[in-house]
This record gives sequence, C-alpha cells and structure tokens, in this order.
Amino acid sequence: MVIPNEIGKKIAVPPATPIFIGKKKVDETVVRAITYNAENVEVLEVKPEELPVHSKGIIWLDIIGLHGVEVVKKIGEAYSIHPLVIEDVLNTSQRVKLEDYEDYVFVVIKVFTFDNGLEVDQLSLILKEDVLITFRERDYDFIDAVLKRVIAGGRGGADYLMYTILDAVVDSYFKILLEFSESIDGLEDEIFSRFTMETSGKLHELKRELNRFKMAIYPVRDVLSFLARYDHKLVDADNRIYFRDVHDHAIRIIETSEYLRDLAMSLRELYLSNLSNRLNEIMKLLTIISTIFIPITFITGVYGMNFRYMPELEWKYGYYAVLTVMSVVALMMLIYFKKKGWV
Amino acid sequence: MVIPNEIGKKIAVPPATPIFIGKKKVDETVVRAITYNAENVEVLEVKPEELPVHSKGIIWLDIIGLHGVEVVKKIGEAYSIHPLVIEDVLNTSQRVKLEDYEDYVFVVIKVFTFDNGLEVDQLSLILKEDVLITFRERDYDFIDAVLKRVIAGGRGGADYLMYTILDAVVDSYFKILLEFSESIDGLEDEIFSRFTMETSGKLHELKRELNRFKMAIYPVRDVLSFLARYDHKLVDADNRIYFRDVHDHAIRIIETSEYLRDLAMSLRELYLSNLSNRLNEIMKLLTIISTIFIPITFITGVYGMNFRYMPELEWKYGYYAVLTVMSVVALMMLIYFKKKGWV
Amino acid sequence: MVIPNEIGKKIAVPPATPIFIGKKKVDETVVRAITYNAENVEVLEVKPEELPVHSKGIIWLDIIGLHGVEVVKKIGEAYSIHPLVIEDVLNTSQRVKLEDYEDYVFVVIKVFTFDNGLEVDQLSLILKEDVLITFRERDYDFIDAVLKRVIAGGRGGADYLMYTILDAVVDSYFKILLEFSESIDGLEDEIFSRFTMETSGKLHELKRELNRFKMAIYPVRDVLSFLARYDHKLVDADNRIYFRDVHDHAIRIIETSEYLRDLAMSLRELYLSNLSNRLNEIMKLLTIISTIFIPITFITGVYGMNFRYMPELEWKYGYYAVLTVMSVVALMMLIYFKKKGWV
Amino acid sequence: MVIPNEIGKKIAVPPATPIFIGKKKVDETVVRAITYNAENVEVLEVKPEELPVHSKGIIWLDIIGLHGVEVVKKIGEAYSIHPLVIEDVLNTSQRVKLEDYEDYVFVVIKVFTFDNGLEVDQLSLILKEDVLITFRERDYDFIDAVLKRVIAGGRGGADYLMYTILDAVVDSYFKILLEFSESIDGLEDEIFSRFTMETSGKLHELKRELNRFKMAIYPVRDVLSFLARYDHKLVDADNRIYFRDVHDHAIRIIETSEYLRDLAMSLRELYLSNLSNRLNEIMKLLTIISTIFIPITFITGVYGMNFRYMPELEWKYGYYAVLTVMSVVALMMLIYFKKKGWV
Amino acid sequence: MVIPNEIGKKIAVPPATPIFIGKKKVDETVVRAITYNAENVEVLEVKPEELPVHSKGIIWLDIIGLHGVEVVKKIGEAYSIHPLVIEDVLNTSQRVKLEDYEDYVFVVIKVFTFDNGLEVDQLSLILKEDVLITFRERDYDFIDAVLKRVIAGGRGGADYLMYTILDAVVDSYFKILLEFSESIDGLEDEIFSRFTMETSGKLHELKRELNRFKMAIYPVRDVLSFLARYDHKLVDADNRIYFRDVHDHAIRIIETSEYLRDLAMSLRELYLSNLSNRLNEIMKLLTIISTIFIPITFITGVYGMNFRYMPELEWKYGYYAVLTVMSVVALMMLIYFKKKGWV
Ligand SMILES: [Mg+2]
Ligand SMILES: [Mg+2]
Ligand SMILES: [Mg+2]
Ligand SMILES: [Mg+2]
Ligand SMILES: [Mg+2]
Ligand SMILES: [Mg+2]
Ligand SMILES: [Mg+2]
Ligand SMILES: [Mg+2]
Ligand SMILES: [Mg+2]
Ligand SMILES: [Mg+2]
Ligand SMILES: [Mg+2]
Ligand SMILES: [Mg+2]
Ligand SMILES: [Mg+2]
Ligand SMILES: [Mg+2]
Ligand SMILES: [Mg+2]
Ligand SMILES: [Mg+2]
Ligand SMILES: [Mg+2]
Ligand SMILES: [Mg+2]
Ligand SMILES: [Mg+2]
Ligand SMILES: [Mg+2]
Ligand SMILES: [Mg+2]
Ligand SMILES: [Mg+2]
Ligand SMILES: [Mg+2]
Ligand SMILES: [Mg+2]
Ligand SMILES: [Mg+2]
Ligand SMILES: [Mg+2]
Ligand SMILES: [Mg+2]
Ligand SMILES: [Mg+2]
Ligand SMILES: [Mg+2]
Ligand SMILES: [Mg+2]
Ligand SMILES: [Mg+2]
Repeated sequence: MVIPNEIGKKIAVPPATPIFIGKKKVDETVVRAITYNAENVEVLEVKPEELPVHSKGIIWLDIIGLHGVEVVKKIGEAYSIHPLVIEDVLNTSQRVKLEDYEDYVFVVIKVFTFDNGLEVDQLSLILKEDVLITFRERDYDFIDAVLKRVIAGGRGGADYLMYTILDAVVDSYFKILLEFSESIDGLEDEIFSRFTMETSGKLHELKRELNRFKMAIYPVRDVLSFLARYDHKLVDADNRIYFRDVHDHAIRIIETSEYLRDLAMSLRELYLSNLSNRLNEIMKLLTIISTIFIPITFITGVYGMNFRYMPELEWKYGYYAVLTVMSVVALMMLIYFKKKGWV
Repeated sequence: MVIPNEIGKKIAVPPATPIFIGKKKVDETVVRAITYNAENVEVLEVKPEELPVHSKGIIWLDIIGLHGVEVVKKIGEAYSIHPLVIEDVLNTSQRVKLEDYEDYVFVVIKVFTFDNGLEVDQLSLILKEDVLITFRERDYDFIDAVLKRVIAGGRGGADYLMYTILDAVVDSYFKILLEFSESIDGLEDEIFSRFTMETSGKLHELKRELNRFKMAIYPVRDVLSFLARYDHKLVDADNRIYFRDVHDHAIRIIETSEYLRDLAMSLRELYLSNLSNRLNEIMKLLTIISTIFIPITFITGVYGMNFRYMPELEWKYGYYAVLTVMSVVALMMLIYFKKKGWV
Repeated sequence: MVIPNEIGKKIAVPPATPIFIGKKKVDETVVRAITYNAENVEVLEVKPEELPVHSKGIIWLDIIGLHGVEVVKKIGEAYSIHPLVIEDVLNTSQRVKLEDYEDYVFVVIKVFTFDNGLEVDQLSLILKEDVLITFRERDYDFIDAVLKRVIAGGRGGADYLMYTILDAVVDSYFKILLEFSESIDGLEDEIFSRFTMETSGKLHELKRELNRFKMAIYPVRDVLSFLARYDHKLVDADNRIYFRDVHDHAIRIIETSEYLRDLAMSLRELYLSNLSNRLNEIMKLLTIISTIFIPITFITGVYGMNFRYMPELEWKYGYYAVLTVMSVVALMMLIYFKKKGWV
Repeated sequence: MVIPNEIGKKIAVPPATPIFIGKKKVDETVVRAITYNAENVEVLEVKPEELPVHSKGIIWLDIIGLHGVEVVKKIGEAYSIHPLVIEDVLNTSQRVKLEDYEDYVFVVIKVFTFDNGLEVDQLSLILKEDVLITFRERDYDFIDAVLKRVIAGGRGGADYLMYTILDAVVDSYFKILLEFSESIDGLEDEIFSRFTMETSGKLHELKRELNRFKMAIYPVRDVLSFLARYDHKLVDADNRIYFRDVHDHAIRIIETSEYLRDLAMSLRELYLSNLSNRLNEIMKLLTIISTIFIPITFITGVYGMNFRYMPELEWKYGYYAVLTVMSVVALMMLIYFKKKGWV
Repeated sequence: MVIPNEIGKKIAVPPATPIFIGKKKVDETVVRAITYNAENVEVLEVKPEELPVHSKGIIWLDIIGLHGVEVVKKIGEAYSIHPLVIEDVLNTSQRVKLEDYEDYVFVVIKVFTFDNGLEVDQLSLILKEDVLITFRERDYDFIDAVLKRVIAGGRGGADYLMYTILDAVVDSYFKILLEFSESIDGLEDEIFSRFTMETSGKLHELKRELNRFKMAIYPVRDVLSFLARYDHKLVDADNRIYFRDVHDHAIRIIETSEYLRDLAMSLRELYLSNLSNRLNEIMKLLTIISTIFIPITFITGVYGMNFRYMPELEWKYGYYAVLTVMSVVALMMLIYFKKKGWV
C-alpha cells in the first residue's frame, strides 16, 4: 500500500504535530552516539536526556526505531530542529527530498530490502556543523560497515560521513535492480514456454513494484544533485566531487529501472501475442478436425437414411465406393491444410 | 460533468459580470466574521451591510454558500476586490490557480468528498493585509477544526491562517487517495478472480475519476510553490517554510495519483489478458470435446449406414471391435491433450 | 480536411502574394467602420476608398468576407500593414499565432461552430494605436453583442476592445467543449449497452475532431500569455489583468480538452474489452451447447449402428437405460458449467 | 532505408574526407553561376576552374548533381569553406541542420517528392557575404521559379535569395502533407468498408513514411528559428521578418504532421476493433447455426437408434410429433437470438 | 544483462575502492605509449613502472585489458588521477558520461560490436595537458586506424587525438544501426508472409537490444555537446568545430534509433493485427464448413429416424427429392458466403 491507512491520524490535527505513521520494526528505540576526531573514536548508547551536543570532533547520532516519538522529539529540541522536520522524520510515508534550513540540511531517503516481496524503510539524515543525525526504522549491514570503517580510522567531516551513508544506500539499490532483473528473466522464460493466467498476474505485480521503486529513486537524483552542485557552507568544496559520484550512480539506477520498465512493457505485449498465438493453435486444431470430419460424417448420414429407394445401397461395392470417396475427401482436406502450413 | 451546462449563461455577457455557476449546496448564504488578536477572539455572524473592514487584529471573513451573489458582490466592494476576482469566486467551474493582485492574493482550490462517487466543491481564498476571506460552497469539519484551534489560542497572522486552511485541504486529499487505492485493490481482486463485463465499466469510471482528481491537484503544486518560494509582502518570511511543507505534501499527492493511474492502466491490461485467457479456456474445452467426439461419431456414422453389403456388420465381435477402436481413438486424443497440458 | 486542396495555389508563387485560400462563406465582403470616443459612437458601412484612417477616438474596422482580396489589400495599404500579414489574413488555413510588428500586433485565432459537425472559421485581428481591425469569414452573434455594448456605452481603448472580442471567442469554445462532452456521454451509453461496429467509427471521428480542436486552442494560450505578461506600448498596463483572465480561460479549455481526450482513449479501451466480452459470451454459448450435445449425440450414434450382434439393443429397457445415461451426462455437464459460473 | 548501405565507406577514414554517400540522380554535375545586381542579371554555366568569386552584385552558385566530388571540393576551396562542411554536403544522409561559421552560414535541408512512394533529396545552402551557394541532387521546378523571378527583376540580397528558396522548399512540404492526408482518407474508407490483411500493411507503410518525413521536418523549425531570431551579420535585420514567416509555415507543417500521425494511430485502433467486430460476426453465425441444429440433430439421433423396444417409433403420429418438437426447439432458439439482437 | 552479477562486490566496500567489474576480454593487460610531435613519433609497449609522464610532444597512453587492476591503479597515481575516476574506469557497467576535473577531463563511452548478438565494451578517455590516456577492454580496428594515421603524419594536439577516437567510435555506431535496420527489414518480411510464434520472440529481443543501445547513445550527445560548446582550457578553440561535427553525428544516431524504435513498435502492431486476421481466416473456414454441412446433416438425421410411419421414406423419388433439397440449401449458403466475400 502506497498510502498507509494511518494517514487518517493526521487529518484535522494542528500542523507540525509529531505523530508516528508506520510499522514498528524493532522492539525498542535505540540512540547511539559516535563521537570522533582524527585521533579518537567513542561509541555509546545514550538516553535522550544525555545527548552529546558539543564535542571536540564530529558527533554522529544514530537513532534506530522511529516509533519512539518522545525520543525523536527530544532530539529535535536538543539540536534545534524545526518541528516540521521532526514531523517528517516520524512519518514513514514521507516522500524522498532534501530541505535546506541554512543551519542544517534535512534529507529523507528510502531503503529497500527484498525478503517477501519489496520492503521499504525510511532513512532521514540531518547534517549540521560537525553533527550528523540519522533516523532509521531498523538496522542495516551497510550502515554497520560504515561504522566499522569510522572505528578503523576512515574518518572525515560530518559531510563525508553523510556521503558514505548515502553511497551505501544507493549501492544497495543495485541489488534491488538485480532482483527485478532476475524476476523479469524468469517471467521471460515463462512467457516463452509454459505461461498461464498466473504469469499475467505476476507481470502486473512486477510493474507495480517497479513503479513503487521508481517513485523512491527519481527524487534521489535531485537530492544528490543539490549536494553535488550547490555551494553549501556545510559541505566542503572538496567533498562535492564525492556527491557527484553518488549522483552518477543514482542516474545509472534510474536509467536501468527505465530499461526494466520498458522490458516489462514489452513482456506484456509478448504475453498477449503468445496468448493470441495459442488461441490460433487451438482454433486451428478444431478447424482441421471439423473440416475433415464434418463433410464425411454428412456422407455417412446420407447413407444412413432409411429411404426405400436408394440404389447405391444395393450396389455390391457401394460401401467400399463410399469409403473411398470419404478417404479422398479427407485426404484433399489434409493436402489443403498441408499447403497452408497448418499441419 | 466537467463542463457545467450553466456555462452557457456566460456567453455574450460583458466581462466580469458576477454570475453564479454551480449547484446550491446550503440553504442560505452565511457570512461569519472571526476577529482576533493575541488576547481576544470574537466570532460573529454578520450581514453584508456590517462587514468588519478595520480591526486591531486579524479579520477572517468566512462565507458559506456561493449562490448568494449579492452578498459576494458587496464583500467584493467592501474590501476593494477586482470584479474579475468576484466573477471567478462565483464560477464553481473555475480552475485551480493563484493570482497576485499586489494588495491581495487570490487563490482558488478544490475540496473533494467521497459519498456517492467523487464530489467536488470550490474554495476561494483572498489574503489581504491582516484579512483573510474564504468563500466556500458548504461546511467542512476540517475548517471547523481550524476555527476551534484559533479560538483555543493557536493564532498567527492572516498568512498563517491561510496556511492552516490549505494544509487541511491538502491533508483531506490523502483521504481521497486512500479511497481510490481501495477501489483499485477491489478491482484487482475482482480481475484476479470473478471479473465480468461490469468490471470493465468500473475500471473506466475509476480512470475518469482519477483524471478529474488529477486536473484539480496538479495546479495546487504551483499555487503552493508561489507561496513557498516567492518573497511576497503579504507572507511573512518565517511562514514560507510552512507553505513549503504543504507544497511537499502536494507533490506527494501528485506522485501517488500518478502511481495509481499507472496501476489502473496496468489493471486494464491485466483485465484484457485475463479475458483472452478465459476465451482460450472456453475454446480449449470446445476443442477437446469436439476433437475427441467428432472422429468417433464419424465411426458410428459409418456403421449406421444402410449398405446391403457391409461385412463388418455381420462379424460376431464387430460391435466390440468398433467400441474398442473408438476407445483407443478417444484415449489417444486424451493423451495428446495431456501432453499439450490442456487437461 | 486540415490541409486545404487550394494550398497548391501557393506553390511557386512569390512570397507575400495575397491569395485567398478557403471557402466563400458570405455573399459579399462588407467593411464596417465603428468610430467612437467617450461621448459618441458612429457605425458606418464604408467602401475601401473611404477608410477612416484618423479619428478623434477609437476606430474599429470590421471586415466580413475574406474572399474580397482587393478590399483586404487596400486596407493593408491604408493602414501600412506588411504584405506578409495580408497574405496570412487571406489564408484561412493559417495557424493560430500572435506576431508583434512594434507599430501593430497581429493575431490569428479560430472560431468554431457546431452545425453539421465541427466547422472552423478564421478571425484575424490587427491592433494599432487607437485602431482595431478585425477580419472574419462570416457574422457571429457574439461579435454583434460586443458592438451593442460599445453602442450602449461600454467603451474603452482599442486594446480593451480587442480583449472583449478575444474573451467572447474563448467563451464560445466552452460551448464546443460541451458538445464534445455530450458526444462522449452518448458514446459511453452506447458502449455500455448496444454498441455496434458504427460505434467504433464514431469514436474515431470524435478523436479526429478533438485533435483538430486541440490544434487550434493550444496556441491561443501563448497568444494570450503574450498579451497578459509582456509590457507592450499598445496594451494599457491596467488592461493586462483582463488578458490574464482570458488566458486563464484558455488554460481551462486546454485542460478540459485533454481530459476529454483521455476519456475518449479510455472509451476505446472499454469498447475493445466489451467486444472481447461479447465474443466470450458467444463462444460460451457455443461451447455449452456443443459440450452438452456432442457426447450424447455420440451415444445415439453408437446405438444407431447396424451391427447384427449388439446385445443392448435387445434389452427390454435398453432404450430407457440409454435415455437415462444421456440425461445424466447432460446434467453433469450442466452442473460443471454451473460451477464455472457460465450458466 | 534510413541508413544508407554506403555509410560503411566512412568508417576508419580520416575526418573531413570528402566522400559521396547517396545515389547519382542526374547524369552530370552542372555548376550554374547567376550574378546580378539591381540593374543586370547574368546566368552562366561555369567550369570549376572559372568560378566567379568576386562580383559587383550578388553571386548565386547553383550546383546540380552531388556525385561530382571533385567539383564540390574545388568550390569549397574557392570560397574557403571548411572541409567538414564539404563532407556534409556530399553525404546525402546528413541530418537537417544549420551551422554558423561566422563568415558563412551552412544549412542542410531535405526536399521530398512523391512519385513511387516518398523520395528524399538533400539540399545544402551556404550563405556568405553577397554569395549564396546551393548544392542539390537534381532539378526542381520551384527553384527554377525562383530563378525566373530573379531574372524578371525580383531581386534582393543573398539572404533574401536564400529565404525565397527555403520558402519554396517549405511550401513544397504542404504538397507532401496533402499526399499523406489523401492516403489516410483512402485507408479510412477501406477500413470502414472492405478492409483486408493488406490494409494493415499499408497502414504500417504509412506510419513509416510519416516518421521519415517527421525526422526531416522537425529540425527545419530550429534552422528557421535561428535565422528569424538571431541577429547575424549575414542576415539583414529587415529580412528576419521573412524568415519568421517561413518559420511559421514550418510549425504549421509539424503540427499537421502530428495531427496525421495521431490519425494514423487512431486508424490502427479502428482497424483492430473492426477486425474484432468481424470475428464476432463470424462466430455469431457459427453459434446461431450450431445452437439451432445441434439439439435437434440430437433428437434425430435418438430416434435413429435401433433399440427393439422404443414405443414412440410405433406411434402413428410419432414422426409428426417429433417434427413439431424440433420446430418448437428451433423456433425458441431463434426467438432467443432475436431477443439478443443477433438476428 | 544490464546489471552485472558482480555488482555485489561493490556493496559495503569503501568508496573509491578500485574493483574490476566485467569480463576479461584479452589475455593480458597491455600498456602502449605513443609519444609524438610534429617531426617524430615513437610507439612503445611499456611497463607500469616506466610510464612516460613528461615529453616534448604529445603522449598517448593506450591501455588494453581492464582486468589489470594494479596497472590501472599505477597509471592513476602516475598521472594524479582521482581514485573515483580509477574506480569508474574499472567498472565496465559504468554509465556514459563526461566529468570535468579542471586539470583533466574524464570521458566514459561504450563500443558496440555485433557478432553473436549485441556486444558492449567500455572505453574510458582521460584528456590532460598534452596527454591522452585511453582504457579499453580489447583491440579495435578503428583505433588501430587512428594510430596508423598518427604514424603517417596526421598529428595534432591531445584534444584532436581524442576527437579522432570519439569520431571513430560514433562512426562505428552507424554500423550497429545498419544491423538493427536489417533485422527490422527481416522481421517485416516475416510478418508480411510466414510469421510464427518465434517472430514475436524475435521482436521482443530486438526491442530489448534497441533499448540497451539507446541507453548508451543518449548520453554521448551530452558528452559531445560539452566538448563542442564549453570553452575548456584543454580543448583548442579551433578544434571545437570538430567536436560539433561528432555531436551532429550523435544526434543523427539518436534520431535514427528513435525511428527504428517506432518502426519496431509499429511492427508489433502489424504482427498482432496479422495474427487477428489469421484467426479470422481460420474461423471463417470453420464457419463456412459448419454452416453448410450442419443443416444438411440434420436433414439426413431426420430421414435416418426409424419411425414406422414416415410417408416420405416410401416415396419413389423421396431420396432424390431430399438430395435436391440438400443441394439447394448448400448452394444458398455458398451464395450467401460469396456475397459476404468470404469465398
Ligand atoms: Mg554510474
Ligand atoms: Mg534515462
Ligand atoms: Mg533511460
Ligand atoms: Mg524510457
Ligand atoms: Mg518512462
Ligand atoms: Mg523507453
Ligand atoms: Mg499500448
Ligand atoms: Mg510529502
Ligand atoms: Mg512523480
Ligand atoms: Mg511519478
Ligand atoms: Mg502520466
Ligand atoms: Mg508516472
Ligand atoms: Mg508511468
Ligand atoms: Mg479558468
Ligand atoms: Mg490538465
Ligand atoms: Mg493539460
Ligand atoms: Mg492530461
Ligand atoms: Mg496528451
Ligand atoms: Mg493524460
Ligand atoms: Mg503557418
Ligand atoms: Mg500541434
Ligand atoms: Mg504538435
Ligand atoms: Mg505525438
Ligand atoms: Mg498528439
Ligand atoms: Mg494502445
Ligand atoms: Mg550528421
Ligand atoms: Mg527525431
Ligand atoms: Mg529524436
Ligand atoms: Mg520515442
Ligand atoms: Mg521520434
Ligand atoms: Mg515517435
């Protein structure tokens, strides 16, 4: 469902009211504070009351579990984040976007996983001077990998940290494209051989999933274009080159998803024409059988009539004559179909 | 109907003539004046002769019932509104737009409700210095909620008041999208199982309604983009952030309606291919039955002929031989169909 | 026909040669001169030799009947109009456009009427300082109404006069949209109930007419956008607001025609799927009848054979047994079809 | 063929190598030099060695036959034309374009003729100070007409001369549109009445030709837009108005070709739905005949059985009774079909 | 496959890690250094340790075989190339693009070959002051031709060298278009005559290949547009004219591929309508045979009944009368079909 049923909760409520819209995906909301500079790195699980606001290096605040409305609100207050931003962070049906608030930049992006069908999570990032806050619905390997690299010494500013996370998210999209591509290959095989009514349903599902994916990835390009091109005080000029690289990946993902959509469309056409072909085969068989047997069955009918005066019936070889006539008729029909290429 | 029949009334009439085009949706035109500042709030029902033009705070003039042409005209005069604006307010088939008249901003927007099919009303807003005038066709809960919040103390300038109303309207669109989404889910189920000729008609209706909705929501984005981006003397710079938030919702609504349109299109294709599949099933049955019985019926015809000299008829086990032959023929056909995967 | 056959006349002829391309729609070319200022108004039918070039007020020169090539040429010379403009005025297959010649503005627009199908006329307007020249193929009520209002005192500059004419033309488009909308409603009813092969032809005609209409109305938006937005010495700044209003109507017309085009496209799909449905119904009937009767007819064939030794034929209740068997077979088939939902 | 087979000649060859790609359409390459000023005009056939480079008036160098590679090369050298331009002049599969080389402007445009299907030629123009060079594949009436007018005294600068040629080419496109329009009318008639499998092939051919035409005319608009809008030293400011006029024609041609493409698309849909209708008619006939006769043939089968004990066979009026029953069954079927509107 | 399976290697790996993604297409990675000036040229195979970084003329470093990750990395270091560039060079699923790094320009482009289906290789170019580095997956004739011309004396700056290579690549695309065009011609013939279910599959393959090709050629236009239009210190102003020429070819290639895509789409429609036509033919045959024989077979059934009292059976010419009736019925049917144009 693209529109969550809980959206009703937001109607007739004052603007910027923090409401959690979505599904609880982890048991408890966890706040992890990673503080580091060129020499040291410290990873702590913290309570909302003891948030590290100032530090001599970089602070990365990583919140896992968006149902903790109170926690998110307190973080918003501690880092002077606008209530409209906090509202968006808590609404997991928020669209992908970047908003520039001068003192900080707010990014919403989607993370896709493929277990039982396509699963979507929301990841929000707030980049402030020397601070990066990430809000997410659950744990991901690729963010753990980022953390491990930070611990191992691969450090940079908060902007570079944001880049490595966005790069990891965009890389994970390639895996999703691979899944789609394999689904399409499977459907292609099915349509070329033993397709059924269900194949048509699967094709419809595929198109829907591709459209859902598309809706999430198109705006990623604009988010990254902003970071790559716009001269922002929070993004080091030397780092823009890195955002340009992720931007390039995002375009590649969009192009490929377009290609897959075109392929899915072409598969629908192939399916329909194979269906028509199959109907033709069915009708050919019926027509061949009917066209051969209907005339000769008529002949048997003629000589099955009970008229008193039917001279042929009395002929000695009448029966064999009729059998011969019927064979000739049937053979002529067969030759006709052979010439047409039907048999 | 997208073009109202009453549109004929406007032809060959001087420009800017105030004519009501639409349906009367409330009994009487009511003018409600809400005047407030940080300390006080006063809600009065007023007559067109006693309109509050000056006040020490904010004036919200709320007109319910657009068939009261005289009332609307008098309000136009009292607040120096251009006759072309008054004409648009009274024409409920006016398209969605924002017009900047320097001293005031004029906005037309649509309100959708879903009772018996999709219902559309028109809501016009005029934002002047410390004055907001709203013209609407009937009462809505979500505007009552705005009023309650104003009374409860949630006050701001006339621009913030306009924002809260536009935000409530745009939020109400999400409910409409939910309705569409549920219709599509229902149709999807139908098409996957027990679809009929009516399913096709419902799909057509759905597409029409989605198109009507689309026509009203696309320009909303431009209206809000103007308010969010353009530096206007009537909109406080700090409030532009709020209009940007509604603008973001409007884009989300457009994206989702696009997604639903694509889904509806894919459903049409699914419907057509399932229809073809069903025809294939029908024809398969006919072909199987015909192909099995036509040849053996021909055999019965042969031995139903009345030739005097037909040796087989005289054989003791002729009847059983023929029964066996027919069974073999039928069985071979069945095996053939089994191999083809038809039975 | 979108390309008139007379277009051949223009090939291999020097540029700017005045040639009339079109059909003669009135008997004689009439030139009407309306001169007015705030106090007086004078309406005269004039000869090409006595054209009022200077006046103390506004001159509206109204030419009816474009086949009068000589008349049009003389007017061009009298008011210093470029020969390329005169050429366009006389070519009724000219596309809709606005051309700015600094000293005057040249506008070509189409007028649609609906008698026997969609009829198109061409209306050209030249706006000079205090002069408006209108060239048209025949008389229209809505221009008479403009004249009556001028006589009755509703006067303004030549630019305001042009506005009232363009406004009247654009308003007349709404009537055409109503006609299209009613055609579509009619076709919708037909497709939902008793459609035939002709319905398909009507749908094709409708699409063609909608495309012809579209070709004429899209550029109207650009014409009006120029007049509404561009600061031109011939258009009073206060009057630009009026052109903006007509521009708004033009957009509404384009949006609605797009909506109708989408509807027509959806109707084609509905028609095709109803056609398929109908084929399914036909084939179901054939299959039901065949599937029930072919097997039992085979049984009658078996007992119609003339073998000497067929024990069943001798049984006392053989006939009744076979009748029972046949009834059971037929009933089982019926139950099968019932379960499939076919009967 | 859109890509000529000779294109292979250009692969692995140094850039700007002059190679003729195309078909020889005249026997010999002819170079015609027309020199003129306000008083005199001189038309000479010249050899490549005696090209008139300087003159007291305008020089129009007209080359007919592009297979004369050496001639074209020499002209390039004599007038200091860039080798890349000469390469393009000789490649008749060059796309339509304008290139500004400051000292001269290079234009490539296509000429269409309709004898046996759509024929395309290439026409290149180089406009220098007081010089116009035209390269073309064969002779055309409309360029002869231009020459006659120059001789008759209708003279202007080299830019005006280029305008009159481009105007003549664009006018010739209208004739092509007329041909397309007539093809479509013919196909429409065919589809409405006696269409066959060939109709479908013709429709495909038409679409292909329309696409080929489209590919050549879209860039013409941009070529003319450059000449009409851009302030170039080689184009007299007063003449830009003439290029604007041809530009207007080009847009008209594009709009009309779009309209024809939409029509062709709608014809395909009409064709498919008429094909479906026809199948319905065929199947209706089969179903009516089958549904009427299959049940009553079953009845004849029943009384054709040879059971010893079949009381009805002994009844006096058994035969008449059965005939009556069969008539009633057949009649009921007919009434059923009548009610369905099938007969 | 558009997304290579090896893409997984890049997930959870630090940005700018050099990983080879692709297939090994030559045995060993070869580095060829061509150093030349107006007088001399030297071609050497070099080791990564002895790269010619400075020279008195132009250095062209040509690397064949991208699986040599270490070699590529060392080249990157020797010429101060950003690690992100080296990463892209090694990833053969990189999209086509140009990136400007001020001191150098990085271009990725695709090379297509047609042996067993469409094969794609990646070619990367880095243009520095007096240096051109080309990375490619295997050897191509057209690059050898460039080298031969350099040796033969056709020398210029590094920018001109890059131009000749890009020109050769774009020229090679024309050959691919020719292949596509021939495939389409073949399919067209097939569809017009003896199409089968496989034809539909071939059409699908063709569309997929065209889409893959399209994805690679569209961005080429932007790459060349940058080089043709943007004033870059590495591109000599006089050479921009050459890039404009290749840009022109790229547009021609895009236009033609669009044309071929439209043709492929039209072929699908043609295929579907021919399939429908064929079904009509099949059903016509069945209907003709059935409609002629079913009624007369019924008549034989009537006179095959065994009623004791059937006067016709006793008539002398009963049999002949019935034969005559049956012939008349069959003839009437034939005449009916003749009139319908079915036989
Ligand atoms: Mg990439
Ligand atoms: Mg793309
Ligand atoms: Mg793409
Ligand atoms: Mg695409
Ligand atoms: Mg797309
Ligand atoms: Mg595509
Ligand atoms: Mg389609
Ligand atoms: Mg949103
Ligand atoms: Mg969108
Ligand atoms: Mg979208
Ligand atoms: Mg869309
Ligand atoms: Mg979309
Ligand atoms: Mg879409
Ligand atoms: Mg409007
Ligand atoms: Mg619209
Ligand atoms: Mg629109
Ligand atoms: Mg639309
Ligand atoms: Mg459209
Ligand atoms: Mg649309
Ligand atoms: Mg025109
Ligand atoms: Mg158009
Ligand atoms: Mg167009
Ligand atoms: Mg189009
Ligand atoms: Mg169109
Ligand atoms: Mg279609
Ligand atoms: Mg080219
Ligand atoms: Mg094109
Ligand atoms: Mg194109
Ligand atoms: Mg296209
Ligand atoms: Mg195209
Ligand atoms: Mg196209």
